[in-house]
Amino acid sequence: MKTLDIDTLRATYKSHEKEALQDFFTFLRFQSVSTDPSYAPQVKECADWLVNYLREMKFHTELWPTAGYPTLFASRMEAGPDKPTLLIYNHYDVQPVDPIQDWVSPPFEPTIRNGEVYARGAQDNKGQCFTTLQALKILLKHYQKLPINIKLIIEGEEENGSTGIASLLKEKKEQLKADYLAIVDVGIQEKNSPSVTLGVRGIVTMDVELTGSKTDLHSGCHGGLAYNPLRALVELLAGLRDANGKIVIPGFYDDVIPLSDQERKQISLEFDAETYEADFGIKPTGGEKNLSLAERVWIRPALEINGVSGGYSGKGFKTVIPSHASAKVSCRIVPNQDPQKIGKLVAQYLESKAPEGISVRVHVHPGGGRAVRASPSSAVVKAFQQAFTEAFNKPCCCIFEGASIPIVTELAAASGSEVVLVGLGLPSDQIHAPNEHFGVDRLEKGAVIIARTIELLS
Amino acid sequence: MKTLDIDTLRATYKSHEKEALQDFFTFLRFQSVSTDPSYAPQVKECADWLVNYLREMKFHTELWPTAGYPTLFASRMEAGPDKPTLLIYNHYDVQPVDPIQDWVSPPFEPTIRNGEVYARGAQDNKGQCFTTLQALKILLKHYQKLPINIKLIIEGEEENGSTGIASLLKEKKEQLKADYLAIVDVGIQEKNSPSVTLGVRGIVTMDVELTGSKTDLHSGCHGGLAYNPLRALVELLAGLRDANGKIVIPGFYDDVIPLSDQERKQISLEFDAETYEADFGIKPTGGEKNLSLAERVWIRPALEINGVSGGYSGKGFKTVIPSHASAKVSCRIVPNQDPQKIGKLVAQYLESKAPEGISVRVHVHPGGGRAVRASPSSAVVKAFQQAFTEAFNKPCCCIFEGASIPIVTELAAASGSEVVLVGLGLPSDQIHAPNEHFGVDRLEKGAVIIARTIELLS
Repeated sequence: MKTLDIDTLRATYKSHEKEALQDFFTFLRFQSVSTDPSYAPQVKECADWLVNYLREMKFHTELWPTAGYPTLFASRMEAGPDKPTLLIYNHYDVQPVDPIQDWVSPPFEPTIRNGEVYARGAQDNKGQCFTTLQALKILLKHYQKLPINIKLIIEGEEENGSTGIASLLKEKKEQLKADYLAIVDVGIQEKNSPSVTLGVRGIVTMDVELTGSKTDLHSGCHGGLAYNPLRALVELLAGLRDANGKIVIPGFYDDVIPLSDQERKQISLEFDAETYEADFGIKPTGGEKNLSLAERVWIRPALEINGVSGGYSGKGFKTVIPSHASAKVSCRIVPNQDPQKIGKLVAQYLESKAPEGISVRVHVHPGGGRAVRASPSSAVVKAFQQAFTEAFNKPCCCIFEGASIPIVTELAAASGSEVVLVGLGLPSDQIHAPNEHFGVDRLEKGAVIIARTIELLS
Repeated sequence: MKTLDIDTLRATYKSHEKEALQDFFTFLRFQSVSTDPSYAPQVKECADWLVNYLREMKFHTELWPTAGYPTLFASRMEAGPDKPTLLIYNHYDVQPVDPIQDWVSPPFEPTIRNGEVYARGAQDNKGQCFTTLQALKILLKHYQKLPINIKLIIEGEEENGSTGIASLLKEKKEQLKADYLAIVDVGIQEKNSPSVTLGVRGIVTMDVELTGSKTDLHSGCHGGLAYNPLRALVELLAGLRDANGKIVIPGFYDDVIPLSDQERKQISLEFDAETYEADFGIKPTGGEKNLSLAERVWIRPALEINGVSGGYSGKGFKTVIPSHASAKVSCRIVPNQDPQKIGKLVAQYLESKAPEGISVRVHVHPGGGRAVRASPSSAVVKAFQQAFTEAFNKPCCCIFEGASIPIVTELAAASGSEVVLVGLGLPSDQIHAPNEHFGVDRLEKGAVIIARTIELLS
């Protein structure tokens, strides 16, 4: 069977773009903020609207209740058992809008400026979710039956820890079963640089608590006597790295599997330090020396301090030796590393290094997430790569993502599928910040790429 | 001329103790909280009450206005130029009372329980100030003329930085001129351990500010790329000491003059580690190794971190690499060290150690205070030592204080006098905290000691 080419798919989208944008604006107007309970009715209305939207597209739909917001499951399985099944993941909840005064136009009144749609969720993830929906619309304009089996899972708590969907995975394993899983929630590095993302790092987080004296002490009367918990804190945390920036905790790198030569050939490890400095105002001088920048952030585990506190930090000065000091520490981990095992290694190391007079307790948060890494040779990766190449008219490379999406690993495992992460987000989209936006052109491109990938997988 | 002995002085105090306690309670009822402007009328009423109290004792009094609360100056100079002049320092302002709910009896309604007067200021410094006033009352019951010239300076902003009195010192130099200066605002280490305090450490404080990226970064996308300002903070601060706890900043100890053998003989450098641990719940394991505990806190400079902040420290977790991190650092300095010089050394060192990608700026706060150290052979020290020995019927030793009272140095310099610090405070008096208290027996003992010292100096 001949597949629809990229130009045909684009023309079909164009023919109903106006209607698509109207629907998109409706979707964006729901104030589906999942972290703030006062938005509960609107989060649920948003889920109901999606259910109707998909029902009109003849999808079988189910709202799976959770302790929080429901997960929407939808499927069209008419392609039959001889055709593969693609599971696509998106989410319909959004981040809070604070600081509201910094928005140029109201976050829940979508507005187009310079070809970009401004609204909370315009990119993350309603915009990307909408490319999934429009890809299916395009195909349904041409076919009575979709060319492969499609399952959609659209959760309502991604911005709030994905606890609802996580609790469902075991029970819904059979329904989630798929050959391929596409997480449509990531991006490309630059506007004209097509890429698919082969993996994310995993994560484990922990609280480090240090205790010295019974109460806060006066730093004059006790300076030079008491072991200051703040001194212990900086010494402990500074002692985690050697001069090359490598973590010195025994066993920290034991389970890391290096990239194979084959992978190195297929993956773009280019990383432009100058662009990075221009974008973020900081040279990329962290991490392990003697490794390329891309390797530091994609291929190697990292340990970061995410917060420190203790003593007085307000205006003026307080000459205190506090009784407590604390830090928040996280590790980004790579495939084959277990989050709890790594957390325990860090915790044991820090506790073992407590100086006399200071008690050190590390609380490793339960759970965390394992890393995901797809093979550049997998069928779904190759299909998306080709679709991106055609849509951009430029070769599509494979990259990684340094951040973690814990639900990805669990969803891939539950569905038994080969995973890939795709999307058209850009670093400049202001997601999670005021004035979030997503290009009208990227709505089209995203829809066309997903539609073309489905064609290629058939 | 025969002087009045300790028993006579004690008997005289006892004969009017009831009246003294009534006056003390009146003094304590003034809510003279200097840090909170809403107490302004009561701080001023308190100063006026003291003026009247001293006028009735035939003191020449002056209220020296300042930008804040007035400094009370009082004198009786009838002993004449052949007799020495003793300047005594106290303060009439008190700390705030929060947390008010933790007070067993209201802070401005003095109450006696188990022989202790409970009230805000009961010890710091109204109680100690009252021992000065009662010493003079005792002597005035025996003499028409005081045996030496007495000057009193009682400030109203000790708990708020002593800025008022500091601004007066230059202008009032002539009036403040004295042979001896007694700072009646310190304590003894244990209830039955008489001691006079030969010195305090000086202080210099600073803010350390680190900046990395333009905005906060996601620790997944940037972990291993950006140099985390929190990492730089802990590395910089941990790098200030060697393995023996000695500060590695070049020049930090250059101006320190070691104790002479003579001083070592005359000063008690005993320090009970077990009592310390029982009192504060921490072993005295800080400071420089290979030095005695007393030396660490009294004789050597110390550098302490008084606060750190940066990133997220609330409940839960935020995977952030913050753009900023900061710390508050103070140094306690010893005689011959200049606070601004030491501050500059620390600042230059920290700034010079900034890793690539991180900007480090240290703001040394202006001023600070120099250390004070009296000679154990000075006449005023010897007089107080003898008076303490007689009052306790136990040899009085010389000790130091690790904390700083910046105004002491300036007042000693302005008055051109030999300084000593005395008082009957105990570590358990809960000064600056709820349920501050001071013993009825210590009011008597303090008055008798000061009266006897005046006798001895005549």
